[in-house]
Amino acid sequence: MLIGRYMYKNKVFYGKITGNRVTPLIGDPFQSIQTGAGDYLMQELVVLAPCSPTKAVCVGINYRDHAEELKLAVPREPVLFLKPPSAVIGHGAKIILPPSSTKVDYEAELAVVIGRTCSKVGIREAGEYIFGYTCANDVTARDLQRKDGQWTRAKSFDTFLPLGPYIVTDLDPADVTVVLRLNGAIRQKSSTRNLVFSIPELVSFISGIMTLLPGDVILTGTPGGVGPLAKGDRVEVVIDGIGTLSNDVSS
Amino acid sequence: MLIGRYMYKNKVFYGKITGNRVTPLIGDPFQSIQTGAGDYLMQELVVLAPCSPTKAVCVGINYRDHAEELKLAVPREPVLFLKPPSAVIGHGAKIILPPSSTKVDYEAELAVVIGRTCSKVGIREAGEYIFGYTCANDVTARDLQRKDGQWTRAKSFDTFLPLGPYIVTDLDPADVTVVLRLNGAIRQKSSTRNLVFSIPELVSFISGIMTLLPGDVILTGTPGGVGPLAKGDRVEVVIDGIGTLSNDVSS
Repeated sequence: MLIGRYMYKNKVFYGKITGNRVTPLIGDPFQSIQTGAGDYLMQELVVLAPCSPTKAVCVGINYRDHAEELKLAVPREPVLFLKPPSAVIGHGAKIILPPSSTKVDYEAELAVVIGRTCSKVGIREAGEYIFGYTCANDVTARDLQRKDGQWTRAKSFDTFLPLGPYIVTDLDPADVTVVLRLNGAIRQKSSTRNLVFSIPELVSFISGIMTLLPGDVILTGTPGGVGPLAKGDRVEVVIDGIGTLSNDVSS
Repeated sequence: MLIGRYMYKNKVFYGKITGNRVTPLIGDPFQSIQTGAGDYLMQELVVLAPCSPTKAVCVGINYRDHAEELKLAVPREPVLFLKPPSAVIGHGAKIILPPSSTKVDYEAELAVVIGRTCSKVGIREAGEYIFGYTCANDVTARDLQRKDGQWTRAKSFDTFLPLGPYIVTDLDPADVTVVLRLNGAIRQKSSTRNLVFSIPELVSFISGIMTLLPGDVILTGTPGGVGPLAKGDRVEVVIDGIGTLSNDVSS
Protein backbone atom coordinates (compact mmCIF):
# COMPACT_ATOMS: atom_id res chain seq x y z
CA MET A 1 0.00 0.00 0.00
CA LEU A 2 1.18 3.54 -0.78
CA ILE A 3 0.30 6.33 1.65
CA GLY A 4 1.10 10.01 1.09
CA ARG A 5 0.23 13.33 2.64
CA TYR A 6 -1.29 16.07 0.55
CA MET A 7 -2.81 19.50 0.54
CA TYR A 8 -5.85 20.60 -1.42
CA LYS A 9 -7.14 24.16 -1.00
CA ASN A 10 -5.23 24.55 2.31
CA LYS A 11 -6.66 21.32 3.73
CA VAL A 12 -3.99 18.76 4.72
CA PHE A 13 -4.75 15.03 4.65
CA TYR A 14 -3.21 11.61 4.31
CA GLY A 15 -4.22 9.70 1.21
CA LYS A 16 -4.04 6.20 -0.23
CA ILE A 17 -2.56 6.11 -3.71
CA THR A 18 -4.02 3.93 -6.48
CA GLY A 19 -2.38 4.58 -9.82
CA ASN A 20 -2.78 8.29 -10.45
CA ARG A 21 -5.57 8.76 -7.91
CA VAL A 22 -5.47 9.61 -4.21
CA THR A 23 -8.26 8.62 -1.83
CA PRO A 24 -8.24 10.74 1.36
CA LEU A 25 -7.97 8.93 4.68
CA ILE A 26 -9.97 9.78 7.76
CA GLY A 27 -7.45 10.94 10.37
CA ASP A 28 -3.93 9.57 10.32
CA PRO A 29 -3.02 6.15 8.97
CA PHE A 30 -1.21 4.98 12.12
CA GLN A 31 -4.37 4.02 14.01
CA SER A 32 -6.26 2.45 11.11
CA ILE A 33 -6.52 3.00 7.38
CA GLN A 34 -10.04 4.34 6.80
CA THR A 35 -10.73 5.85 3.42
CA GLY A 36 -13.12 8.78 3.19
CA ALA A 37 -15.42 9.82 0.37
CA GLY A 38 -14.25 10.69 -3.15
CA ASP A 39 -10.79 10.91 -4.58
CA TYR A 40 -8.43 13.30 -6.34
CA LEU A 41 -6.15 13.19 -9.33
CA MET A 42 -2.55 13.33 -8.04
CA GLN A 43 -1.85 16.40 -10.17
CA GLU A 44 -4.61 18.37 -8.40
CA LEU A 45 -2.76 18.04 -5.08
CA VAL A 46 0.23 19.64 -3.42
CA VAL A 47 2.52 16.80 -2.31
CA LEU A 48 3.70 17.14 1.30
CA ALA A 49 6.21 15.06 3.23
CA PRO A 50 4.41 11.72 3.80
CA CYS A 51 4.46 12.05 7.59
CA SER A 52 4.96 14.74 10.18
CA PRO A 53 7.63 13.41 12.55
CA THR A 54 8.07 14.67 16.11
CA LYS A 55 11.70 13.67 15.58
CA ALA A 56 13.98 12.38 12.85
CA VAL A 57 16.64 10.10 14.29
CA CYS A 58 19.59 9.64 11.97
CA VAL A 59 22.40 7.12 11.93
CA GLY A 60 25.88 8.24 10.91
CA ILE A 61 28.42 6.09 9.09
CA ASN A 62 26.15 3.09 8.59
CA TYR A 63 27.46 1.95 5.18
CA ARG A 64 31.01 0.64 5.06
CA ASP A 65 31.86 2.57 1.87
CA HIS A 66 30.74 5.91 3.36
CA ALA A 67 32.94 5.29 6.43
CA GLU A 68 35.88 4.76 4.07
CA GLU A 69 35.31 7.96 2.09
CA LEU A 70 35.11 9.98 5.32
CA LYS A 71 38.22 8.12 6.62
CA LEU A 72 36.28 7.06 9.71
CA ALA A 73 36.26 3.69 11.44
CA VAL A 74 33.07 1.62 11.22
CA PRO A 75 31.42 2.26 14.60
CA ARG A 76 30.79 -0.53 17.12
CA GLU A 77 27.45 1.00 18.09
CA PRO A 78 25.19 3.20 15.95
CA VAL A 79 26.20 6.88 16.02
CA LEU A 80 23.02 8.93 16.35
CA PHE A 81 22.06 12.49 15.58
CA LEU A 82 18.76 14.32 15.27
CA LYS A 83 17.33 16.56 12.57
CA PRO A 84 14.51 18.87 13.71
CA PRO A 85 10.96 18.62 12.31
CA SER A 86 11.43 22.15 10.92
CA ALA A 87 13.92 20.74 8.37
CA VAL A 88 11.32 18.48 6.70
CA ILE A 89 10.12 19.22 3.16
CA GLY A 90 8.24 17.07 0.68
CA HIS A 91 8.81 15.78 -2.84
CA GLY A 92 9.05 18.70 -5.25
CA ALA A 93 9.86 21.35 -2.63
CA LYS A 94 13.09 23.30 -2.88
CA ILE A 95 16.29 22.72 -0.91
CA ILE A 96 17.59 26.17 0.06
CA LEU A 97 21.38 26.57 0.33
CA PRO A 98 22.19 28.68 3.41
CA PRO A 99 24.67 31.57 2.98
CA SER A 100 26.71 30.35 5.99
CA SER A 101 27.90 27.21 4.15
CA THR A 102 30.01 26.84 1.01
CA LYS A 103 29.61 23.04 0.74
CA VAL A 104 26.18 21.48 1.09
CA ASP A 105 26.13 17.76 0.30
CA TYR A 106 23.35 15.35 -0.65
CA GLU A 107 23.05 12.03 1.21
CA ALA A 108 20.56 9.46 -0.14
CA GLU A 109 18.97 7.34 2.59
CA LEU A 110 16.23 4.81 3.21
CA ALA A 111 13.92 6.15 5.93
CA VAL A 112 11.90 3.97 8.29
CA VAL A 113 8.51 5.36 9.34
CA ILE A 114 7.38 4.27 12.81
CA GLY A 115 3.75 3.15 13.13
CA ARG A 116 3.27 2.54 16.85
CA THR A 117 4.65 4.01 20.07
CA CYS A 118 7.87 2.14 20.56
CA SER A 119 10.04 1.94 23.67
CA LYS A 120 12.73 -0.63 24.50
CA VAL A 121 11.74 -3.17 21.85
CA GLY A 122 13.85 -6.17 20.98
CA ILE A 123 15.39 -6.82 17.57
CA ARG A 124 12.94 -9.62 16.76
CA GLU A 125 9.83 -7.57 17.52
CA ALA A 126 11.10 -4.34 15.92
CA GLY A 127 9.25 -5.02 12.66
CA GLU A 128 5.88 -4.79 14.40
CA TYR A 129 6.54 -1.11 15.09
CA ILE A 130 7.40 -0.16 11.53
CA PHE A 131 4.64 1.39 9.43
CA GLY A 132 6.62 1.58 6.21
CA TYR A 133 9.51 3.10 4.30
CA THR A 134 10.20 6.21 2.28
CA CYS A 135 13.11 8.03 0.61
CA ALA A 136 15.10 10.66 2.46
CA ASN A 137 17.88 13.09 1.66
CA ASP A 138 20.05 13.90 4.69
CA VAL A 139 21.24 17.25 3.34
CA THR A 140 24.41 18.28 5.19
CA ALA A 141 26.54 21.43 5.28
CA ARG A 142 29.82 19.51 5.18
CA ASP A 143 32.01 22.51 6.01
CA LEU A 144 29.99 23.32 9.13
CA GLN A 145 29.92 19.63 10.14
CA ARG A 146 33.74 19.61 10.16
CA LYS A 147 34.03 23.01 11.84
CA ASP A 148 31.55 22.35 14.67
CA GLY A 149 32.51 18.78 15.59
CA GLN A 150 28.89 18.33 16.64
CA TRP A 151 26.78 17.65 13.55
CA THR A 152 23.58 19.40 14.59
CA ARG A 153 23.99 22.78 12.91
CA ALA A 154 25.21 21.19 9.65
CA LYS A 155 22.17 18.90 9.48
CA SER A 156 19.41 21.17 10.83
CA PHE A 157 18.85 23.98 8.33
CA ASP A 158 15.30 24.47 7.10
CA THR A 159 14.68 22.31 3.97
CA PHE A 160 17.57 19.91 4.84
CA LEU A 161 15.28 16.89 5.23
CA PRO A 162 13.39 16.03 2.03
CA LEU A 163 11.12 13.01 2.66
CA GLY A 164 8.87 11.19 0.22
CA PRO A 165 7.26 10.96 -2.20
CA TYR A 166 5.06 8.57 -0.15
CA ILE A 167 5.32 5.67 2.31
CA VAL A 168 5.41 2.08 1.05
CA THR A 169 4.02 -0.19 3.75
CA ASP A 170 4.92 -3.60 2.30
CA LEU A 171 8.60 -3.24 1.37
CA ASP A 172 11.17 -5.83 2.44
CA PRO A 173 14.10 -3.52 3.28
CA ALA A 174 16.78 -6.21 3.62
CA ASP A 175 18.25 -5.74 0.13
CA VAL A 176 16.97 -2.70 -1.74
CA THR A 177 19.07 -0.48 -3.96
CA VAL A 178 19.49 3.13 -2.83
CA VAL A 179 20.55 5.52 -5.61
CA LEU A 180 21.25 9.22 -5.76
CA ARG A 181 20.96 11.02 -9.08
CA LEU A 182 22.29 14.54 -9.53
CA ASN A 183 20.96 16.19 -12.67
CA GLY A 184 20.28 12.70 -13.99
CA ALA A 185 23.75 11.22 -13.29
CA ILE A 186 24.13 8.47 -10.70
CA ARG A 187 26.35 9.61 -7.81
CA GLN A 188 25.52 7.12 -5.05
CA LYS A 189 24.46 3.51 -5.47
CA SER A 190 24.43 0.77 -2.88
CA SER A 191 22.15 -1.80 -1.33
CA THR A 192 20.79 -1.89 2.20
CA ARG A 193 22.51 -5.28 2.51
CA ASN A 194 25.67 -3.18 3.05
CA LEU A 195 24.28 -1.54 6.18
CA VAL A 196 26.55 -1.87 9.21
CA PHE A 197 23.51 -2.04 11.53
CA SER A 198 20.31 -3.57 10.17
CA ILE A 199 16.95 -1.86 10.41
CA PRO A 200 15.67 -4.09 13.26
CA GLU A 201 18.93 -3.45 15.13
CA LEU A 202 18.48 0.32 14.69
CA VAL A 203 14.84 0.33 15.82
CA SER A 204 15.77 -1.71 18.89
CA PHE A 205 18.84 0.39 19.74
CA ILE A 206 17.08 3.76 19.31
CA SER A 207 13.90 2.68 21.13
CA GLY A 208 16.12 1.73 24.08
CA ILE A 209 17.09 5.41 24.35
CA MET A 210 14.05 7.41 23.33
CA THR A 211 10.40 6.57 22.85
CA LEU A 212 9.52 6.61 19.16
CA LEU A 213 6.06 7.86 18.18
CA PRO A 214 3.86 7.15 15.15
CA GLY A 215 5.16 9.15 12.20
CA ASP A 216 8.68 9.48 13.61
CA VAL A 217 11.39 8.57 11.13
CA ILE A 218 14.74 6.82 11.33
CA LEU A 219 17.26 7.66 8.59
CA THR A 220 19.37 4.56 8.13
CA GLY A 221 22.58 6.16 6.85
CA THR A 222 24.02 7.00 3.43
CA PRO A 223 26.27 5.00 1.09
CA GLY A 224 29.54 6.26 -0.38
CA GLY A 225 29.59 8.92 -3.07
CA VAL A 226 28.31 11.95 -1.21
CA GLY A 227 29.02 15.25 -2.95
CA PRO A 228 28.01 18.88 -3.20
CA LEU A 229 24.83 20.53 -4.41
CA ALA A 230 24.72 23.76 -6.39
CA LYS A 231 21.97 26.22 -7.14
CA GLY A 232 19.87 24.96 -10.03
CA ASP A 233 20.64 21.27 -9.44
CA ARG A 234 17.94 18.62 -9.40
CA VAL A 235 18.70 15.96 -6.79
CA GLU A 236 16.81 12.65 -6.72
CA VAL A 237 16.83 9.80 -4.23
CA VAL A 238 15.66 6.64 -5.97
CA ILE A 239 14.92 3.51 -3.95
CA ASP A 240 13.84 0.20 -5.49
CA GLY A 241 10.30 -0.65 -4.51
CA ILE A 242 9.56 2.91 -3.38
CA GLY A 243 10.16 5.48 -6.12
CA THR A 244 11.83 8.84 -6.62
CA LEU A 245 12.12 11.76 -4.24
CA SER A 246 13.02 14.78 -6.36
CA ASN A 247 14.02 18.23 -5.14
CA ASP A 248 15.49 21.24 -6.88
CA VAL A 249 18.20 23.29 -5.24
CA SER A 250 17.87 27.02 -4.73
CA SER A 251 19.75 29.76 -2.89
CA MET B 1 2.86 36.57 34.56
CA LEU B 2 3.33 32.88 35.40
CA ILE B 3 2.03 30.31 32.92
CA GLY B 4 2.08 26.55 33.51
CA ARG B 5 0.67 23.43 31.91
CA TYR B 6 -1.42 21.04 33.94
CA MET B 7 -3.57 17.95 33.87
CA TYR B 8 -6.83 17.47 35.72
CA LYS B 9 -8.78 14.22 35.23
CA ASN B 10 -6.85 13.46 32.00
CA LYS B 11 -7.58 16.90 30.54
CA VAL B 12 -4.44 18.89 29.66
CA PHE B 13 -4.48 22.69 29.70
CA TYR B 14 -2.34 25.76 30.11
CA GLY B 15 -3.07 27.84 33.18
CA LYS B 16 -2.27 31.25 34.62
CA ILE B 17 -0.95 31.08 38.17
CA THR B 18 -2.07 33.50 40.88
CA GLY B 19 -0.70 32.55 44.28
CA ASN B 20 -1.84 29.00 44.89
CA ARG B 21 -4.57 29.05 42.24
CA VAL B 22 -4.49 28.17 38.55
CA THR B 23 -6.95 29.67 36.06
CA PRO B 24 -7.20 27.57 32.88
CA LEU B 25 -6.48 29.28 29.57
CA ILE B 26 -8.49 28.79 26.41
CA GLY B 27 -6.15 27.20 23.89
CA ASP B 28 -2.43 27.86 24.09
CA PRO B 29 -0.94 31.06 25.49
CA PHE B 30 1.17 31.85 22.41
CA GLN B 31 -1.68 33.40 20.41
CA SER B 32 -3.34 35.31 23.23
CA ILE B 33 -3.84 34.81 26.95
CA GLN B 34 -7.55 34.17 27.39
CA THR B 35 -8.64 32.85 30.75
CA GLY B 36 -11.56 30.41 30.86
CA ALA B 37 -14.13 29.86 33.59
CA GLY B 38 -13.28 28.78 37.14
CA ASP B 39 -9.97 27.91 38.70
CA TYR B 40 -8.17 25.11 40.55
CA LEU B 41 -6.03 24.82 43.62
CA MET B 42 -2.47 23.99 42.47
CA GLN B 43 -2.45 20.85 44.63
CA GLU B 44 -5.47 19.43 42.76
CA LEU B 45 -3.47 19.39 39.52
CA VAL B 46 -0.76 17.25 37.94
CA VAL B 47 2.07 19.61 36.94
CA LEU B 48 3.29 19.04 33.36
CA ALA B 49 6.23 20.60 31.53
CA PRO B 50 5.10 24.21 30.92
CA CYS B 51 5.23 23.86 27.15
CA SER B 52 5.31 21.13 24.57
CA PRO B 53 8.27 21.92 22.30
CA THR B 54 8.60 20.59 18.74
CA LYS B 55 12.33 20.88 19.41
CA ALA B 56 14.70 21.72 22.24
CA VAL B 57 17.80 23.43 20.90
CA CYS B 58 20.70 23.32 23.34
CA VAL B 59 23.93 25.26 23.48
CA GLY B 60 27.11 23.53 24.63
CA ILE B 61 29.93 25.18 26.57
CA ASN B 62 28.24 28.56 27.00
CA TYR B 63 29.63 29.43 30.46
CA ARG B 64 33.39 30.03 30.71
CA ASP B 65 33.71 27.99 33.95
CA HIS B 66 32.02 24.92 32.39
CA ALA B 67 34.42 25.10 29.40
CA GLU B 68 37.32 25.08 31.87
CA GLU B 69 36.09 22.05 33.83
CA LEU B 70 35.61 20.12 30.57
CA LYS B 71 39.07 21.32 29.40
CA LEU B 72 37.48 22.73 26.24
CA ALA B 73 38.17 26.04 24.54
CA VAL B 74 35.42 28.66 24.63
CA PRO B 75 33.81 28.33 21.20
CA ARG B 76 33.81 31.19 18.68
CA GLU B 77 30.28 30.31 17.55
CA PRO B 78 27.55 28.58 19.59
CA VAL B 79 27.85 24.77 19.54
CA LEU B 80 24.36 23.36 19.08
CA PHE B 81 22.72 20.05 19.80
CA LEU B 82 19.12 18.88 19.99
CA LYS B 83 17.19 16.98 22.62
CA PRO B 84 14.03 15.24 21.37
CA PRO B 85 10.54 16.17 22.63
CA SER B 86 10.28 12.62 24.04
CA ALA B 87 12.90 13.54 26.67
CA VAL B 88 10.72 16.25 28.25
CA ILE B 89 9.27 15.76 31.74
CA GLY B 90 7.74 18.25 34.16
CA HIS B 91 8.41 19.41 37.70
CA GLY B 92 8.00 16.51 40.11
CA ALA B 93 8.38 13.75 37.52
CA LYS B 94 11.18 11.22 37.89
CA ILE B 95 14.49 11.18 36.03
CA ILE B 96 15.16 7.55 35.10
CA LEU B 97 18.80 6.42 34.98
CA PRO B 98 19.32 4.19 31.92
CA PRO B 99 21.18 0.88 32.44
CA SER B 100 23.53 1.66 29.51
CA SER B 101 25.22 4.52 31.40
CA THR B 102 27.25 4.51 34.61
CA LYS B 103 27.58 8.31 34.89
CA VAL B 104 24.51 10.49 34.42
CA ASP B 105 25.14 14.17 35.23
CA TYR B 106 22.84 17.06 36.08
CA GLU B 107 23.23 20.38 34.21
CA ALA B 108 21.23 23.38 35.46
CA GLU B 109 20.18 25.76 32.70
CA LEU B 110 17.99 28.76 31.98
CA ALA B 111 15.58 27.87 29.15
CA VAL B 112 14.09 30.39 26.73
CA VAL B 113 10.53 29.67 25.55
CA ILE B 114 9.77 30.93 22.04
CA GLY B 115 6.44 32.73 21.60
CA ARG B 116 6.22 33.39 17.86
CA THR B 117 7.40 31.69 14.69
CA CYS B 118 10.94 32.91 14.34
CA SER B 119 13.23 32.68 11.31
CA LYS B 120 16.38 34.69 10.59
CA VAL B 121 15.78 37.38 13.19
CA GLY B 122 18.41 39.92 14.16
CA ILE B 123 19.92 40.27 17.64
CA ARG B 124 18.01 43.49 18.35
CA GLU B 125 14.60 42.08 17.48
CA ALA B 126 15.17 38.67 19.11
CA GLY B 127 13.38 39.71 22.31
CA GLU B 128 10.09 40.10 20.44
CA TYR B 129 10.05 36.36 19.75
CA ILE B 130 10.59 35.28 23.36
CA PHE B 131 7.50 34.29 25.35
CA GLY B 132 9.29 33.73 28.63
CA TYR B 133 11.76 31.70 30.65
CA THR B 134 11.77 28.52 32.68
CA CYS B 135 14.23 26.21 34.45
CA ALA B 136 15.75 23.22 32.66
CA ASN B 137 17.99 20.32 33.56
CA ASP B 138 20.06 19.09 30.61
CA VAL B 139 20.54 15.58 32.00
CA THR B 140 23.53 13.96 30.27
CA ALA B 141 25.03 10.46 30.24
CA ARG B 142 28.61 11.73 30.49
CA ASP B 143 30.21 8.36 29.72
CA LEU B 144 28.20 7.95 26.51
CA GLN B 145 28.86 11.56 25.52
CA ARG B 146 32.62 10.88 25.66
CA LYS B 147 32.30 7.48 23.96
CA ASP B 148 30.11 8.58 21.04
CA GLY B 149 31.76 11.88 20.17
CA GLN B 150 28.32 13.03 18.98
CA TRP B 151 26.29 14.11 22.02
CA THR B 152 22.85 13.00 20.83
CA ARG B 153 22.55 9.61 22.53
CA ALA B 154 23.93 10.93 25.82
CA LYS B 155 21.39 13.77 25.87
CA SER B 156 18.28 12.06 24.43
CA PHE B 157 17.11 9.41 26.89
CA ASP B 158 13.48 9.61 27.99
CA THR B 159 13.18 11.87 31.10
CA PHE B 160 16.50 13.66 30.34
CA LEU B 161 14.84 17.07 29.89
CA PRO B 162 13.04 18.27 33.00
CA LEU B 163 11.40 21.68 32.30
CA GLY B 164 9.44 23.90 34.65
CA PRO B 165 7.83 24.44 37.02
CA TYR B 166 6.18 27.21 34.90
CA ILE B 167 7.08 29.99 32.46
CA VAL B 168 7.80 33.50 33.73
CA THR B 169 6.97 35.99 31.00
CA ASP B 170 8.45 39.17 32.49
CA LEU B 171 11.96 38.12 33.55
CA ASP B 172 15.02 40.16 32.58
CA PRO B 173 17.49 37.33 31.86
CA ALA B 174 20.65 39.47 31.64
CA ASP B 175 21.88 38.75 35.19
CA VAL B 176 19.95 36.01 36.98
CA THR B 177 21.51 33.44 39.28
CA VAL B 178 21.30 29.80 38.15
CA VAL B 179 21.77 27.27 40.96
CA LEU B 180 21.75 23.50 41.13
CA ARG B 181 21.01 21.81 44.43
CA LEU B 182 21.63 18.11 44.91
CA ASN B 183 19.88 16.74 48.00
CA GLY B 184 19.84 20.30 49.32
CA ALA B 185 23.54 21.09 48.74
CA ILE B 186 24.53 23.72 46.17
CA ARG B 187 26.61 22.16 43.37
CA GLN B 188 26.37 24.74 40.59
CA LYS B 189 25.98 28.49 40.97
CA SER B 190 26.58 31.18 38.38
CA SER B 191 24.89 34.14 36.76
CA THR B 192 23.69 34.48 33.19
CA ARG B 193 26.02 37.47 32.95
CA ASN B 194 28.76 34.82 32.54
CA LEU B 195 27.19 33.45 29.34
CA VAL B 196 29.60 33.31 26.41
CA PHE B 197 26.74 34.05 23.96
CA SER B 198 23.84 36.19 25.20
CA ILE B 199 20.22 35.15 24.82
CA PRO B 200 19.50 37.57 21.94
CA GLU B 201 22.65 36.31 20.19
CA LEU B 202 21.48 32.70 20.61
CA VAL B 203 17.94 33.37 19.33
CA SER B 204 19.36 35.19 16.31
CA PHE B 205 21.99 32.52 15.56
CA ILE B 206 19.61 29.56 15.92
CA SER B 207 16.77 31.22 13.99
CA GLY B 208 19.23 31.72 11.13
CA ILE B 209 19.50 27.93 10.89
CA MET B 210 16.10 26.55 11.78
CA THR B 211 12.65 28.07 12.12
CA LEU B 212 11.65 28.20 15.79
CA LEU B 213 7.99 27.65 16.61
CA PRO B 214 5.85 28.77 19.56
CA GLY B 215 6.64 26.56 22.56
CA ASP B 216 10.09 25.57 21.28
CA VAL B 217 12.82 25.95 23.88
CA ILE B 218 16.45 27.04 23.81
CA LEU B 219 18.65 25.74 26.62
CA THR B 220 21.31 28.37 27.19
CA GLY B 221 24.12 26.21 28.59
CA THR B 222 25.23 25.13 32.05
CA PRO B 223 27.74 26.67 34.48
CA GLY B 224 30.64 24.82 36.08
CA GLY B 225 30.10 22.20 38.76
CA VAL B 226 28.33 19.44 36.83
CA GLY B 227 28.34 16.10 38.57
CA PRO B 228 26.65 12.72 38.78
CA LEU B 229 23.17 11.71 39.86
CA ALA B 230 22.37 8.57 41.82
CA LYS B 231 19.17 6.67 42.48
CA GLY B 232 17.24 8.33 45.29
CA ASP B 233 18.72 11.81 44.72
CA ARG B 234 16.58 14.91 44.60
CA VAL B 235 17.92 17.39 42.03
CA GLU B 236 16.71 20.98 41.90
CA VAL B 237 17.35 23.77 39.42
CA VAL B 238 16.74 27.11 41.13
CA ILE B 239 16.69 30.32 39.10
CA ASP B 240 16.20 33.77 40.63
CA GLY B 241 12.92 35.26 39.49
CA ILE B 242 11.56 31.91 38.33
CA GLY B 243 11.55 29.30 41.08
CA THR B 244 12.54 25.69 41.64
CA LEU B 245 12.36 22.75 39.24
CA SER B 246 12.60 19.62 41.38
CA ASN B 247 12.96 16.03 40.19
CA ASP B 248 13.77 12.81 41.99
CA VAL B 249 16.10 10.25 40.45
CA SER B 250 15.08 6.68 39.90
CA SER B 251 16.48 3.62 38.13
